[in-house]
Amino acid sequence: MSPIDHTHDATARSWVTSANAPDGDFPIQNLPFAVFRHHGGDEAFRGGVAIGDQVIDLARVAELGCLEGLAHEAALAGARPYLNDLMAMGPQAARALRHGLFALLKEGADGPAVDVLRGCLTPQVAVQYTVPVQVHNYTDFYTSIHHARSVGRLIRPDQPLSPNFQWLPIAYHGRASSVVVSGTDFHRPMGQALPQGASAPVYGACARLDFELEMAIYVGQGNALGEQVPLAEAEEHLFGMGLLNDWSARDHQFWEMAPLGPFLGKNFCTSVSPWVVTMDALAPYRVAAVHRPAGDPQPLAYLADAANQRAGGIDVRLTVGLETALHRARGLPPAEITRTSFRHQYWTVAQMLTQHTVGGCNLQSGDLLGTGTISGPAPEEAGAIVELSVGGSQPLTLAGTGEQRAFLEDGDAVVLRGWCEAPGAARIGFGECRGMVLPAKS
Amino acid sequence: MSPIDHTHDATARSWVTSANAPDGDFPIQNLPFAVFRHHGGDEAFRGGVAIGDQVIDLARVAELGCLEGLAHEAALAGARPYLNDLMAMGPQAARALRHGLFALLKEGADGPAVDVLRGCLTPQVAVQYTVPVQVHNYTDFYTSIHHARSVGRLIRPDQPLSPNFQWLPIAYHGRASSVVVSGTDFHRPMGQALPQGASAPVYGACARLDFELEMAIYVGQGNALGEQVPLAEAEEHLFGMGLLNDWSARDHQFWEMAPLGPFLGKNFCTSVSPWVVTMDALAPYRVAAVHRPAGDPQPLAYLADAANQRAGGIDVRLTVGLETALHRARGLPPAEITRTSFRHQYWTVAQMLTQHTVGGCNLQSGDLLGTGTISGPAPEEAGAIVELSVGGSQPLTLAGTGEQRAFLEDGDAVVLRGWCEAPGAARIGFGECRGMVLPAKS
Repeated sequence: MSPIDHTHDATARSWVTSANAPDGDFPIQNLPFAVFRHHGGDEAFRGGVAIGDQVIDLARVAELGCLEGLAHEAALAGARPYLNDLMAMGPQAARALRHGLFALLKEGADGPAVDVLRGCLTPQVAVQYTVPVQVHNYTDFYTSIHHARSVGRLIRPDQPLSPNFQWLPIAYHGRASSVVVSGTDFHRPMGQALPQGASAPVYGACARLDFELEMAIYVGQGNALGEQVPLAEAEEHLFGMGLLNDWSARDHQFWEMAPLGPFLGKNFCTSVSPWVVTMDALAPYRVAAVHRPAGDPQPLAYLADAANQRAGGIDVRLTVGLETALHRARGLPPAEITRTSFRHQYWTVAQMLTQHTVGGCNLQSGDLLGTGTISGPAPEEAGAIVELSVGGSQPLTLAGTGEQRAFLEDGDAVVLRGWCEAPGAARIGFGECRGMVLPAKS
Repeated sequence: MSPIDHTHDATARSWVTSANAPDGDFPIQNLPFAVFRHHGGDEAFRGGVAIGDQVIDLARVAELGCLEGLAHEAALAGARPYLNDLMAMGPQAARALRHGLFALLKEGADGPAVDVLRGCLTPQVAVQYTVPVQVHNYTDFYTSIHHARSVGRLIRPDQPLSPNFQWLPIAYHGRASSVVVSGTDFHRPMGQALPQGASAPVYGACARLDFELEMAIYVGQGNALGEQVPLAEAEEHLFGMGLLNDWSARDHQFWEMAPLGPFLGKNFCTSVSPWVVTMDALAPYRVAAVHRPAGDPQPLAYLADAANQRAGGIDVRLTVGLETALHRARGLPPAEITRTSFRHQYWTVAQMLTQHTVGGCNLQSGDLLGTGTISGPAPEEAGAIVELSVGGSQPLTLAGTGEQRAFLEDGDAVVLRGWCEAPGAARIGFGECRGMVLPAKS
């Protein structure tokens, strides 16, 4: 995150001409990581880096040796079928790799290494992705005050915001095994729910299926059991970020969650985007943490420092698209139902990481942290349909088809998108995180 | 679990004479699994089977080939530094291995294979253990109605039992990375707590440190994402059980847990016993599931069947010992502070597994399920100190030293023990699950 990081040069262009498209997600300033293989084969998954509409195959980069030193070591680690080992090497390694690739990809670069790199490119349309890490642990935070207030109002009208919300980044452990990559469809879950006014629950298919717009945070270097990561060091333990959809069965969740929190209402599927954008690439889009007016609770000392307050936020622009079967039949794009930014989040990524370790919990490289639903201050910036439809009472009308939705229906696909832009900086993007609801199985 | 399983013959004895001790945990009828290596070396961990005061080294058994067919295949899988692969083979594999070892270990057995097996034995005092599986996922249930009522009374006096308790086995996801093996000490965690009557929290060392007496359940064969495991098949997905201590920082937990459940209050350390007793070995100790009087909620159809009602319970006798520094200094045994049985648990292990998958969540081989705190019907059968001391208001007086404890103090060790006995069956045990509280680090 050096201020003179030349990969942040907004004027840089690549000889991969698709990387120079003005609204593309993957210009030379981004260079995010994923794990991929070619469609239809049974070859091994390996790490890759996006440039324009191409993927750089890190297994070939490592094998053909077009990088040197730490960058080569990082490519070797990144060539495995998961990014955990690259993440474990710490920020210097991925930085060396990105800088090495940047130099070779720049417009005008030439020489034998550039020729070799040319042979490591594969069109993105020819590949499939998998979850970019082995998810050893998945934690989901709850750090949007706007989401907490509007969902809290539906469950606990007398006290929408729990008393701890402004004092600590609330989180709970999620299910690691059911994290899937974008494009993986899933069946509407079965389970128990308590019908309105009933005294006994019923068993059936989820009737209030929802998405949650979140970002994924990937842990780089871990910490030992019993060792805290102080706030000043927290950013050095973060590798990068992606998009995350925390699909939620609201009827199942609301019935089961007292007193120990969500379980089956969340653990049937969690989708992540294939691409992980590094914290280095996100540096130009840092903004101040949310201002807390005097009189509001201020963070305790271990969760506060000037650097975090000054640049703890990240202005990631986010949209949610809802695509019904009718959109697909008519060739229409998904209806945009939300547009907001991650900059409104009440707690920063560094505060989340530090809080996670304050009691000594050990984080492991590649651990997945969800930010919690990202809802902005305005009602139309809400990151879940339960908020947008006010608990299902005010169905949305979808652009394109005019259909109405109180909750998700079978055949609905939800598409998360994210990107960053700032004065003097390039536009970089996260690609998409998509999933479709299939009918319940029984 | 065949009714004519000859490993259940209570009269069987072994030529490993320590296995014939009347109160031992590891007679020939038990043959539980662990992962071990010799003290002081840097050799690889490998699977082992307990017999008396010895461990059978499965790596040597596999290498020297003293078993055949499926039993040999199982020994090969069990020789790895974690038991997940053996667990993934399904109940037949571990059954074949236990039966093969039983035949070779029986008093009077002879022949070349017995001689080879003799060379695979190592005294337990010469080895150290590690967590028996790679914990990909850890789920903690909450299935003792006595615990739920008495803890609920402390937090929600108006409604001690949440309305869902009698309808479904409540659970939440726990932290996999901080699961440690018995004998691993840990530092008292730091964190936020809300002092009684205060409006703002304070940061500091946990002041209400507790244990939770639980059993560990290890998943054998998993299920695919989106596929339920029906109740009638649930037992076939269980490999075995151990002891588990879900250490809990009550002050941190009670402040953080609204609305999403426990997080830091639990994730600083969870201890498991090294030994995993198979479901086969537990078969003679099966008892009826808890009777629900007419008028009480009865389980919904997917959580009910006759076999589960008839033999879903397991009579595992359990004790908790508290050993202070003074006990150690005086050479006194730990003070017994609880004695109960797993038979009182409101939901059965099969119901827990089925509920976990009802929405399609995929379980993986070696996944760890905690049963939740095991408290029996009488107050002195409580499985946590917060219950025994009534929220800290009635300190316990410890046998041996006469010390008092409202919560755990630095230097206190907690020792869980479990065993089974039944008319016409041998006594088998789980060994111990021990951990000691070290002072907070900052």
